[in-house]
Amino acid sequence: MSLRIAAIRAARPITSKAKLSLAQLSRRAYSTPQSNKPIPSIKGTLIGSFAAGLVGTIAYNYVNQDNQVRCDGAPLVEAIDTHGYPWVPVDAIEKDDPSNPMRIRMANWVKSLQDHIVATMEDIESKSEPNSFSPSSETPRFLKDTWLRKEGGEGSSCVLNGGRVFEKAGINVSIVHGMLPPKAQKAMLPDHPSLPEPTETVPFFATGLSIVIHPRNPHVPTVHLNYRYFELADPKDPNGKPKAWWFGGGSDLTPSYLIEEDAIHFHKELKKACDKHDERYWPDFKKACDKYFFINHRGESRGIGGIFFDDLTTSSPINQPTTSEGILKTQEDLFDFVKDASGAFLPAYVPIVYKNKDRKWTEEERRWQQLRRGRYVEFNLVYDRGTKFGLATPGARIESILMSLPETARWEYMSDMGNEGSNTPEEELIKVLKNPKEWV
Amino acid sequence: MSLRIAAIRAARPITSKAKLSLAQLSRRAYSTPQSNKPIPSIKGTLIGSFAAGLVGTIAYNYVNQDNQVRCDGAPLVEAIDTHGYPWVPVDAIEKDDPSNPMRIRMANWVKSLQDHIVATMEDIESKSEPNSFSPSSETPRFLKDTWLRKEGGEGSSCVLNGGRVFEKAGINVSIVHGMLPPKAQKAMLPDHPSLPEPTETVPFFATGLSIVIHPRNPHVPTVHLNYRYFELADPKDPNGKPKAWWFGGGSDLTPSYLIEEDAIHFHKELKKACDKHDERYWPDFKKACDKYFFINHRGESRGIGGIFFDDLTTSSPINQPTTSEGILKTQEDLFDFVKDASGAFLPAYVPIVYKNKDRKWTEEERRWQQLRRGRYVEFNLVYDRGTKFGLATPGARIESILMSLPETARWEYMSDMGNEGSNTPEEELIKVLKNPKEWV
Repeated sequence: MSLRIAAIRAARPITSKAKLSLAQLSRRAYSTPQSNKPIPSIKGTLIGSFAAGLVGTIAYNYVNQDNQVRCDGAPLVEAIDTHGYPWVPVDAIEKDDPSNPMRIRMANWVKSLQDHIVATMEDIESKSEPNSFSPSSETPRFLKDTWLRKEGGEGSSCVLNGGRVFEKAGINVSIVHGMLPPKAQKAMLPDHPSLPEPTETVPFFATGLSIVIHPRNPHVPTVHLNYRYFELADPKDPNGKPKAWWFGGGSDLTPSYLIEEDAIHFHKELKKACDKHDERYWPDFKKACDKYFFINHRGESRGIGGIFFDDLTTSSPINQPTTSEGILKTQEDLFDFVKDASGAFLPAYVPIVYKNKDRKWTEEERRWQQLRRGRYVEFNLVYDRGTKFGLATPGARIESILMSLPETARWEYMSDMGNEGSNTPEEELIKVLKNPKEWV
Repeated sequence: MSLRIAAIRAARPITSKAKLSLAQLSRRAYSTPQSNKPIPSIKGTLIGSFAAGLVGTIAYNYVNQDNQVRCDGAPLVEAIDTHGYPWVPVDAIEKDDPSNPMRIRMANWVKSLQDHIVATMEDIESKSEPNSFSPSSETPRFLKDTWLRKEGGEGSSCVLNGGRVFEKAGINVSIVHGMLPPKAQKAMLPDHPSLPEPTETVPFFATGLSIVIHPRNPHVPTVHLNYRYFELADPKDPNGKPKAWWFGGGSDLTPSYLIEEDAIHFHKELKKACDKHDERYWPDFKKACDKYFFINHRGESRGIGGIFFDDLTTSSPINQPTTSEGILKTQEDLFDFVKDASGAFLPAYVPIVYKNKDRKWTEEERRWQQLRRGRYVEFNLVYDRGTKFGLATPGARIESILMSLPETARWEYMSDMGNEGSNTPEEELIKVLKNPKEWV
């Protein structure tokens, strides 16, 4: 019960902040607090940069005309000038127009959600006392880096370093498009059986929101979220209907110390979002999450799971979902689900932060957290598909890709922490990581 | 000149310590100081463990008869009882017998060298004052873990955690053998063109010494060494002559701050060892080192280089080296080179340690060192062939493989340290990492 109340309390201040337009946001300082150098123009610094960890998407025409962005065929949307570059407004949740192509609607959704979440995290910082790690009396703020991709696309990285509550938090949006040759399409086939047999180079479009938050307190878990939409264009279709598209996403929790009621709360919120749309989602997506976030060489999960799905589409019979009554779902149904699942992030995570952020911790607990962060680094560098794809992509924006890494991590040879039979809180976590549990 | 003297001084105490037999060494405590548990038998704890980062080797018969080890065909060597397991004596440098097969001679060499280097590092610790990181008045010692591999082989990991000078140091020997199916042989072909076309499963044998030392002081560089010998047996040869074999190895330096004279000294010692054997070695192996230790996604080298070579053999015409007079080299020639090159490690590194270990450092310098350690982690987890092979090997001994990781590492988003135009010592290092230099 108390969790519920906390969730509502935490969620309340978001709504008003979410209405901040990007124009307002863009007036905030874009410079890094560690540097006194003048802010270079976005154009100069960001050309050549690239989307982090995203898998792809369509070169449709964001035609910049004066101050307007034309979403190929859809009604003209008013753009906002951000340092000389037009931007689709962020208050698009209210403005979401079903007559727009999905790529535009999803891009607007992730940008809005990014703003919601950034605002919420800053709100948590403002409600917390300065401490020895973050002694300033000024509320720590996210640094927002916007970038344009020469080959097509844009994005923004919101990063908080050295917060009172959050040691390192990255909340990234990317919207990229370009041409995808058959070879690259083939490489996607194993994870995306819904893709049609690649025969020619076609335009692609990808947009997504990617979040990793590493709190300072060992009793507040690390959290990760990623939601994405991918499209392959059909150059022959006169109406611009894509040849293939899918949604993917999920979020998962990585505590250093297991707090059962928090684990249950997190999973319950995600399950609720799933169940609202399809009762088959939760069991499937929970299982997929445990399978994906597994550190094979350690024989343990990265964290205690959440949900993970990919290749969710109606554009191919392979993964084409039906309702429980056997009626084929629409793209709108899937988008509704994606909005609810990604929207469940704040009510799933924020109450856990409020509940634990002011708990005392010992040096040993901090040491254990650092060892767990080492495992996080191992997973991300060795296994994570998005990271591996990003690092192997020439011209990729490395800073965005590796934003997921913690500020600090630790490795000990034959560490004595968390060992079998030690009957410690550390061992309790390891047990659950070795044998993923059904929390709800 | 002063470097030379320091090298001699540092090298002197080694000789006598190297004569410690393994029996004596084995009387040292094998238990971890962090644990009060009784020491389990080696057999119980180590079966199932495996060699770190090594590429393979022959199942020849170490026949245990009473207290003797029979080195297939070679004279019986007296074995020493170590916790119930026989061991070839470590003072094998003096005993090296050219009539022994190379696999035995190389295994003895790396075990002897391991002891030399462990003893030297402990000697450095004993000559240094306790400090806030390592306040104990007792000299920090290496923990020696010996292990047996169920599938065939043995090894020992010597690890120092929390030293006065060395934050984390690992000095590992492994000697493994087993059967290698054609598929696994094929996988080795790209890096080992000297391998004959694989047609059948054959016995393999691999032995090697692997070292990573991360000092505490940001002015003392991290160092890495790896020397290995690999053999594929020819089951049809009545004399047990292998079908293919090669040596590989090298060592390289990773400073956080560039000290030109130290860089020159390190490279000079390695060059001397190379030049003694073949004037073509140094330029080739230096170049190969810069190429191998490159963090592609950062566009920079891991460190300032050293030497790196692989597939050095006379068993195939492909890489068969000749002397400058065009005379074919022998296996003995190559072994002599390997001994000199690996033996150059101490005179190349130890003087740099003595010269800088007591230098003062600032918090900023430590922060920069931690950021560089993050890069070290990136290289080892993303690119290093040995690490990748080890992590992908079922039943591999993960603790040995990841022993190369630093105790602590750091990642900052868009860090302000070392940036172009900052005219800082940090930038000076980055310049050299982006454009590898000829030091000698």
